[in-house]
Amino acid sequence: MGKAAGFTLGELAAALHATLEGDPARVVTAVAPLDTAGPDQISFLIDARYAAAAKRSRAGAFLAGTDASGLPGPVLRTEAPQQALIDLLALFHPEAPATPGIAPSAVVAPDACVDATASVGPFAVVEPGALVGAGVRIHAFVFVGRGAEVGEGSVLHPRVVLCAGVILGRRVVVHPGAVVGADGFGYAFDGEAHRKIPQVGGVLIEDDVEIGANTTIDRAMLGQTIVRRGTKIDNLVQIAHNVEIGEHSIIVAQVGISGSSRIGRGVVLAGQVGVADHLTVGDRAVVLAQSGLARDVAPGEKLFGTPARPVLQAKRIWVVEEQLPEIARRLRAAERRLQRLEGQLGIAAPELPKGETDDGGR
Amino acid sequence: MGKAAGFTLGELAAALHATLEGDPARVVTAVAPLDTAGPDQISFLIDARYAAAAKRSRAGAFLAGTDASGLPGPVLRTEAPQQALIDLLALFHPEAPATPGIAPSAVVAPDACVDATASVGPFAVVEPGALVGAGVRIHAFVFVGRGAEVGEGSVLHPRVVLCAGVILGRRVVVHPGAVVGADGFGYAFDGEAHRKIPQVGGVLIEDDVEIGANTTIDRAMLGQTIVRRGTKIDNLVQIAHNVEIGEHSIIVAQVGISGSSRIGRGVVLAGQVGVADHLTVGDRAVVLAQSGLARDVAPGEKLFGTPARPVLQAKRIWVVEEQLPEIARRLRAAERRLQRLEGQLGIAAPELPKGETDDGGR
Amino acid sequence: MGKAAGFTLGELAAALHATLEGDPARVVTAVAPLDTAGPDQISFLIDARYAAAAKRSRAGAFLAGTDASGLPGPVLRTEAPQQALIDLLALFHPEAPATPGIAPSAVVAPDACVDATASVGPFAVVEPGALVGAGVRIHAFVFVGRGAEVGEGSVLHPRVVLCAGVILGRRVVVHPGAVVGADGFGYAFDGEAHRKIPQVGGVLIEDDVEIGANTTIDRAMLGQTIVRRGTKIDNLVQIAHNVEIGEHSIIVAQVGISGSSRIGRGVVLAGQVGVADHLTVGDRAVVLAQSGLARDVAPGEKLFGTPARPVLQAKRIWVVEEQLPEIARRLRAAERRLQRLEGQLGIAAPELPKGETDDGGR
Repeated sequence: MGKAAGFTLGELAAALHATLEGDPARVVTAVAPLDTAGPDQISFLIDARYAAAAKRSRAGAFLAGTDASGLPGPVLRTEAPQQALIDLLALFHPEAPATPGIAPSAVVAPDACVDATASVGPFAVVEPGALVGAGVRIHAFVFVGRGAEVGEGSVLHPRVVLCAGVILGRRVVVHPGAVVGADGFGYAFDGEAHRKIPQVGGVLIEDDVEIGANTTIDRAMLGQTIVRRGTKIDNLVQIAHNVEIGEHSIIVAQVGISGSSRIGRGVVLAGQVGVADHLTVGDRAVVLAQSGLARDVAPGEKLFGTPARPVLQAKRIWVVEEQLPEIARRLRAAERRLQRLEGQLGIAAPELPKGETDDGGR
Repeated sequence: MGKAAGFTLGELAAALHATLEGDPARVVTAVAPLDTAGPDQISFLIDARYAAAAKRSRAGAFLAGTDASGLPGPVLRTEAPQQALIDLLALFHPEAPATPGIAPSAVVAPDACVDATASVGPFAVVEPGALVGAGVRIHAFVFVGRGAEVGEGSVLHPRVVLCAGVILGRRVVVHPGAVVGADGFGYAFDGEAHRKIPQVGGVLIEDDVEIGANTTIDRAMLGQTIVRRGTKIDNLVQIAHNVEIGEHSIIVAQVGISGSSRIGRGVVLAGQVGVADHLTVGDRAVVLAQSGLARDVAPGEKLFGTPARPVLQAKRIWVVEEQLPEIARRLRAAERRLQRLEGQLGIAAPELPKGETDDGGR
Repeated sequence: MGKAAGFTLGELAAALHATLEGDPARVVTAVAPLDTAGPDQISFLIDARYAAAAKRSRAGAFLAGTDASGLPGPVLRTEAPQQALIDLLALFHPEAPATPGIAPSAVVAPDACVDATASVGPFAVVEPGALVGAGVRIHAFVFVGRGAEVGEGSVLHPRVVLCAGVILGRRVVVHPGAVVGADGFGYAFDGEAHRKIPQVGGVLIEDDVEIGANTTIDRAMLGQTIVRRGTKIDNLVQIAHNVEIGEHSIIVAQVGISGSSRIGRGVVLAGQVGVADHLTVGDRAVVLAQSGLARDVAPGEKLFGTPARPVLQAKRIWVVEEQLPEIARRLRAAERRLQRLEGQLGIAAPELPKGETDDGGR
């Protein structure tokens, strides 16, 4: 959490390619949220929901988009304030450089290959045949299994487990407690017991993937479980054997993806979504929180519910559901009115099909 | 699981402030469930669902409320039997005292500050600048990150990870495998890839909080993720960045709370509940299991479903849903009766709006 | 991931008790999926969904059932191809034998009893009084608590935590990061705060159980949490205190079972299912993914939904739900037609009960 001594607004405007409305010599020493920022701190307004909080803020300066107005202080304006915020945070919180080398307490197999610029933390275990690339950071208690590979610039936070043969690309970040490459959940019932199907495949995690804390990604039965380039996976997610996830997808916390399903590029699975096995989810599909997928999804579809329906349809049904008790009452009333009309006209009540009695069978 | 040699019912009555119906000299040597307790063990009847099991029990004595009747043995009666059970269990299972000191295999940074009365288990790692308070118990494989603080009397079970800068109050209990302070899940898409938004905030856990096994609580982007005093969190819960949970709330297993949502005091989120981002859940609200919150919740509201509705409304809808196939049949029958009436009266069937055909468009 | 040099199809036919259609002298060197298998590899067709992929496959041979046809190469035919596949994979991927002995970095208490044929990996901790049976494999970072027992032939993968007193049967497999025996989630509110109910019971895992990565199984308050023989539990599952699961059940990823519920024999709980507390789920019941159980389940019942209903009923309701917006429109139309008929006949519109207005109160 290291912080630089501070920057002038002029320096920040230059670094962020932003237009400054205010005194370029003014100094800010930290980035802070709107509600706690003081006069020597810079805050930001990106999400319009915070416009009122911004107007009340005591921050010494603001980073904002081109359309924000009424901010009570100097403004750094940019067309892409979200991207500029990333740069701003990186300026104030530069990453601490790792010290290359292997902690004395780590256990690295003689025939594991650890690049001289990598760092290996206390009590880490690197098994025979593993490859650890340049600049990799392996933190405390990490387990790198037999023959596993960790690409250049990747970071394994404390207590990550990479099982045997797992392959990680470059700049992959794995958060504490994640387990990559445990056995898939595969059994065949032989009439008496569930026999384990050997899980002898691997896991391939491509470049720039991020994997959340305590998430589990199982090895394939045969072949590989694959997470493609740039996909981000949140905490406590379960990815079963032989799943493949395309590039630049977003998998939010507690999602579960069952065996052999294929998730496309740029897909968003919101929190706690479940995906059944052997499904295909098309590129850029969006599945809202807690939904359950029980069928294939076309590219770009937006779904909600269990089993999931197109969002617009799900919402329309949702609205009518609220009226259900009333619909039942109104239907009973209509049936009574019909009976009275039929009586007055001397028409016999129709032969009701079984189950269509007047009182609804209650 | 240490056990004392035994207590007389007289001793227990005094210790629990209970009224004894039976022989004060009788000795019991353990607390046991109704179905397995023998004549030298004491059992308890607190939940009325177990009244029949209690009548069949062979226990040598019973702890019960003032209204329990027909128990087949001596009874310790109290107005608050649940609280008395806690005291009873504590009498028979006193906590083993920890031995202060640092295990020889632990790695404690020279400038970390560990109180002399704290214990640090084998292979624990305490990083530079960390503060460990009086009487704290740090078990095996625990990671206490740079500058993290652990308040007096807290217990970190094996394999807990506290990332850099996380602050724990007094008497906090963290169960095995929990991860506190991993990066929040924040990215901004730049047109080509998801760029990581630096997560540079912290986590504050107040006094008397308990955190379940393999639960994850992410650090704030800026500011703090906060869990207030006395709140209890079960296993495998996900708490995202910048969430704040009020005092004395109950968060049951596998709940997920999305970024920046604020949960009030005394709230109950039952198992597998999901809370969307940026929501406010009022004090004492209760959300039933598996519900999904997609809107703010007023204080005291009781909700169920995905998206969640007031419980009474949800139940009423639920009941009518069961009749849906029949409602559809009855509506078709009413339409046929209408058509016949209109025919007999020589009335033209009404111009049906598009989609309102007689057969429902099926 | 070791592989033998290869087998002739004749050898494989004999080993698998299969009928060979093709040249018995042909050699295959590996098992591979249909889409990647080459001419020196054997693939398999078990799931009819892959029949088309099999026809396109370049594999040098196929393992298949008796009814598969049109396979483009030699076929090993058997009546139980799923079971034969297990044998085939085991032939090509024999398990590497463990080297008995205790890693120099492990910390084993002097009065723990570790069988001479067991292996204990780097940084493992075995606490006083623990029993580790013959042939057990304890991998890196495993914690075996005070008095815990691990039966013959069991495997504890890296970073498993067995808390004090947990008992594991024979041939139990626990995957990385699982926590067995953490405190159950039990509190009693005393008017001011949630007081912890001491969790002093144990956990019993019987023979041949498998427990997934980062799964949590809590100790009982009193008595035992029990998982019976042959049951398989996937990743990130939560099993609360005092739960009992019968023999040969299947508990898929991210399921949560609340306190004191009893799951029968041969039950299947699909992914993300939630089970409320104190329920009984009968033998051979099947609960579909994401369902929530709020009542007891009879033996053999098949349920779906939250709260769960019989699958056939749930599906019928689901179909009518899709028509709900249209049903509402048709009901309004019927009411208008009734009003017109009543007008023509000079009948006063009926006294509508409160809430049954013509426009539905919208």
